[in-house]
Amino acid sequence: MYHEVKTNFVYLLHPLPGILITSIGKNNNPNVMSASWITPISINPPLISISLRPERYTYELIKETGDFAINIPDYSLRKAVFICGRFSGRKVNKFKKANLTPIPANKIKSPIIKECLAHIECTLEKIIELPADHHLIIGRVQYAQAHEEIFKNTYIPEKFKPLLYFGKDIYGTIETFEQVKIEEI
Amino acid sequence: MYHEVKTNFVYLLHPLPGILITSIGKNNNPNVMSASWITPISINPPLISISLRPERYTYELIKETGDFAINIPDYSLRKAVFICGRFSGRKVNKFKKANLTPIPANKIKSPIIKECLAHIECTLEKIIELPADHHLIIGRVQYAQAHEEIFKNTYIPEKFKPLLYFGKDIYGTIETFEQVKIEEI
Repeated sequence: MYHEVKTNFVYLLHPLPGILITSIGKNNNPNVMSASWITPISINPPLISISLRPERYTYELIKETGDFAINIPDYSLRKAVFICGRFSGRKVNKFKKANLTPIPANKIKSPIIKECLAHIECTLEKIIELPADHHLIIGRVQYAQAHEEIFKNTYIPEKFKPLLYFGKDIYGTIETFEQVKIEEI
Repeated sequence: MYHEVKTNFVYLLHPLPGILITSIGKNNNPNVMSASWITPISINPPLISISLRPERYTYELIKETGDFAINIPDYSLRKAVFICGRFSGRKVNKFKKANLTPIPANKIKSPIIKECLAHIECTLEKIIELPADHHLIIGRVQYAQAHEEIFKNTYIPEKFKPLLYFGKDIYGTIETFEQVKIEEI
């Protein structure tokens, strides 16, 4: 039997990756927040969209400095991702609280996170201000890297335990996987 | 050691849910495609964004009829999702090929899929035509439902085997999960 889902409709689209976004202010103070409403939106040019509430400190810093980084943790970092979703960088040094280390990026001013397994460095392409509680931050990829042990053309599922977020503080990871082959169809 | 990732940067943001999008033409022919570049973008109003190539048949049908549905399969439907990503509805009846059953939706003209465990019915709010290979289809949620056995405020991870897509025809599901508690921090 189906039941109607109202406000929680957003969680029907989860589990989504638990991702860490880093940014930096003109005062050189780095910040980190967790987010899941992120998706690639174009290969050429290489674009990514992030939904952000305009009152978030990260939103302010991205507008100020014009770049940000996407950092991919694995399942072992679920408590760090939880912490980076619960506190505001206006009040708390979340790197310290979550035991994460900001290190210099390759092409942008915002830092990347040492403990993460892949990083995507973006410049701010455009903000789409929707009449909605979140706006769309469109980033253009300037550089991307991954640990060679876990990513070839895509993640190597035998080697990578992705962090996926169900909503409501529940995190999980993938243990069963299969490559579907056209000959089996 | 990190290595640079170029075109495959999109897969750094995976695994993402493998989702089925249904639409219908004015001629009453329903269509289905698989997609992963979908995310909630606002709770109030309830908005969802889908990235679609403008040459896709689904894009044409959504523009024609003004609505579409998002259908959530579980891991058991991975071959159906693979099929719906490999063929075009212009040439193939993908419902038949993938053993999926279109049934009437609650509030929109596009059908929903009987074999799926949750459905989100959307009207087309807006198309954002980016100078890029995909455009953004912004949908407004008109109705959402889920099987009561698998979804309460979010998916019940003990009861639901989500279908997640790594890219390159690799699908997986979650077996390990944990709710993080603020008292543990």
